Amino acid sequence: VQDAASDRDPDEFDALLIPGGYSPDHLRMDRDVVAFVLDFSATGKPIAAVCHGPQLLIEADLVRGKQVTSWPSVRRDLENAGAVWVDREVVIDDPLITSRKPDDLGAFSDALLSALR
Amino acid sequence: VQDAASDRDPDEFDALLIPGGYSPDHLRMDRDVVAFVLDFSATGKPIAAVCHGPQLLIEADLVRGKQVTSWPSVRRDLENAGAVWVDREVVIDDPLITSRKPDDLGAFSDALLSALR
Repeated sequence: VQDAASDRDPDEFDALLIPGGYSPDHLRMDRDVVAFVLDFSATGKPIAAVCHGPQLLIEADLVRGKQVTSWPSVRRDLENAGAVWVDREVVIDDPLITSRKPDDLGAFSDALLSALR
Repeated sequence: VQDAASDRDPDEFDALLIPGGYSPDHLRMDRDVVAFVLDFSATGKPIAAVCHGPQLLIEADLVRGKQVTSWPSVRRDLENAGAVWVDREVVIDDPLITSRKPDDLGAFSDALLSALR
């Protein structure tokens, strides 16, 4: 099975990590993936996204009223989706953990690991 | 000079054509490019964008209240920017001409050529 998002149960996982690059541009068009992100958000467990990853959070309408960060090209789209965009290496607004770019991965990983403790 | 957008004058051109792919994701982070798009829009001359091209129109805040189309991954971002997204091979809402995908390029080119006549 190529796309198994519809077969997964959020209860199987402790956190959701959305990497960047151009994959979120594809993932946001997959209804099963967006539905999984929505189901996962209902658990209240951490959702971490870096670089272009927050595009998937826009698609699931999870950023409204939340503080977030991202790769700079996604800033305007996040603001238009109702988020407050912050220029910081990691922004924590439970359950969301977001970072801007590869250089932020240390702080990003630390924040996610802390949330899992 | 690698980036000459700041040296260009909208009066030199009859229309602005924004291609798709991932280049709009880069172009929208270039202040000079976004400023040129804004300056160009002030002329009222046609602005045509296809696939991911409308991302640059979001960045310049030119889609509010306009009917547009795009590659499907950009739909939500356009709607959040105030646009009405339409699923049609070409959508004309002066001065904007937008199309969804490579298959639409015939109708897209015809619309742009008509606007230039």
